[in-house]
Amino acid sequence: MSRFFTSKFSGLVPYTPGEQPRDMQYIKLNTNESPFPPSEKAMAYAREEAERLRLYPDPECKALTEKLAEHFGVLPENVIVNNGSDETLNFAFMAFCDEKRPAYFADITYGFYPVFAQVNRLPYMEIPLKTDFSLDPADYTDKHGFIVIANPNAPTGMALPLTQIERIVAEHPDGVVVVDEAYVDFGAESAVPLTKKYDNLLVVQTYSKSRSMAGARLGFGIGNAELIQDLNTIRFSTNPYNINRMTMAAGVGALEDDAYMKANCAKIMENRAYTVNALEKSGFTVLPSAANFIFARHPQIDGKEMYLTLKENGILVRHFDKPSLCQYNRITIGTREQMETFIATVRKLWEAAR
Amino acid sequence: MSRFFTSKFSGLVPYTPGEQPRDMQYIKLNTNESPFPPSEKAMAYAREEAERLRLYPDPECKALTEKLAEHFGVLPENVIVNNGSDETLNFAFMAFCDEKRPAYFADITYGFYPVFAQVNRLPYMEIPLKTDFSLDPADYTDKHGFIVIANPNAPTGMALPLTQIERIVAEHPDGVVVVDEAYVDFGAESAVPLTKKYDNLLVVQTYSKSRSMAGARLGFGIGNAELIQDLNTIRFSTNPYNINRMTMAAGVGALEDDAYMKANCAKIMENRAYTVNALEKSGFTVLPSAANFIFARHPQIDGKEMYLTLKENGILVRHFDKPSLCQYNRITIGTREQMETFIATVRKLWEAAR
Repeated sequence: MSRFFTSKFSGLVPYTPGEQPRDMQYIKLNTNESPFPPSEKAMAYAREEAERLRLYPDPECKALTEKLAEHFGVLPENVIVNNGSDETLNFAFMAFCDEKRPAYFADITYGFYPVFAQVNRLPYMEIPLKTDFSLDPADYTDKHGFIVIANPNAPTGMALPLTQIERIVAEHPDGVVVVDEAYVDFGAESAVPLTKKYDNLLVVQTYSKSRSMAGARLGFGIGNAELIQDLNTIRFSTNPYNINRMTMAAGVGALEDDAYMKANCAKIMENRAYTVNALEKSGFTVLPSAANFIFARHPQIDGKEMYLTLKENGILVRHFDKPSLCQYNRITIGTREQMETFIATVRKLWEAAR
Repeated sequence: MSRFFTSKFSGLVPYTPGEQPRDMQYIKLNTNESPFPPSEKAMAYAREEAERLRLYPDPECKALTEKLAEHFGVLPENVIVNNGSDETLNFAFMAFCDEKRPAYFADITYGFYPVFAQVNRLPYMEIPLKTDFSLDPADYTDKHGFIVIANPNAPTGMALPLTQIERIVAEHPDGVVVVDEAYVDFGAESAVPLTKKYDNLLVVQTYSKSRSMAGARLGFGIGNAELIQDLNTIRFSTNPYNINRMTMAAGVGALEDDAYMKANCAKIMENRAYTVNALEKSGFTVLPSAANFIFARHPQIDGKEMYLTLKENGILVRHFDKPSLCQYNRITIGTREQMETFIATVRKLWEAAR
């Protein structure tokens, strides 16, 4: 820290992203990336756009916004696109949370939420999940402010049915409810249709997972036109040209190739079922996942040790040191071949641990 | 504005980017883009990287940071890369400006500085330029806080010599001085070498202008390692994966093709000299420019009317409504052919105005 760093941030603890090894020699099951390349159309549009990089991107992101609106059956004024959904989330904290409307989110969820609250110096409270890692909407009934729900949740993978999401939104008409649907395409129900009924609902999605574009940085929010306008006020006050031309073009291409995304999601869900089944046969406990990852533990294997041993064996998974999570590992679902190698390695480890 | 928008931002007036017409039918001299395409190497690297978009980018931006460090003769820990230099500037306001250290910048300069102060709810004061649009370092001597100097300045194009920049940095050892060098490659002296001597100096540059990559969104800061670490604390607390893979690869390619950039800058400077000379012959006053644009007015032509008439004639320039600027127009320097068309159109207009 320099002697110039403002004292208001002196206690700020940044988010820790998952390891991004540069040698690429691991079977990389640690950051919930897709094992499949982006749509050919997305890549082709991005490559073509390289030609036009001398010109600023359209700050209104019109082409992509219109395409997303069409895809989700909403109007362009209901959509904002961002440099990754982390940016959409940060803007939502900035716009809709303050001293009078503190943030509420689960104690076990995406680890960036408390960081967004801290960097914007906003009050927040973590609401404990049940011991089975489920979220009970009743725990939010008396929490009036700004609510963020990841659905499916991370790192558990567990999803709430839409009726329960709707209950939370309906019970808090005077505060914004953000539903972070980063993993929704792998088996959960999207709340996007509810944005037409509730003016306090903001749904956030990303191209990073189901659309295989983590490296392109593209996220978006869908909600009431006035919520979107507020987020744009923040965007135009911090970084109006936040999406580069190539990513914007790729985003259009990916939507034109929706069948490819759906087929990839179906494969991931198949591979997930295979992996869960094989792990359970080996004595693991696996939380019910609607995401492209699973959260699993074994009664006889220490979570951290399992992470380290897998890493030595060329497989990266994600381990969290938090006491309530440290016996688990989060395992991204990859190709069938990767999951077979993973299961074979785990069995070897499991045999060794017995 | 929604009923949920935090009252603290209710008066926020976002930055207004220059027009980005979608039909491309104008000679576009309004947003200081380069008339030349990016380096072939930059485009090739970006296109190649599209293949790997399924993976997150390296959050440490190691390859690009090392390349920039080598290029500028500093260490990798002296460099931060961002999603456009607007992001670097916003992070600097967040990190180094507060109630005790208000922001100071010229009253006529990049219009985003007051917006960064406002969105971060920071105190700021605009220091008037002299009537000839020059900046006098003496006006900053008693201003202790966080100083931002655009060098060359916008929209004037006027540059300060390095000795005067150094005077400001040396006179304020207890506050950070940001030198925004977006346009430095078109004829001004960079303060990068001074970052080794002063721990309170942050130099900000961009790929948008001289490297023809406005559409890729890539900016960077160079300074003392501790300043850079503080900016990274902010980055990892808001958007750790802020640079997409294609842009990062293009950034490396552009640096490997430095001769191309230098040749383009030389052409722009030649075309600038041609344009200034022709305008002066037609009775215009043109401020001395070290940038890829000029700021010009004609005693008999109203500034706004000139902007509008040029637009009707297929040429977009940038006009500012601010009273001290409204008789001028900012004209980006394009290709020789574009500038000849511009001059011919202006002469037609000028003849008509007589």
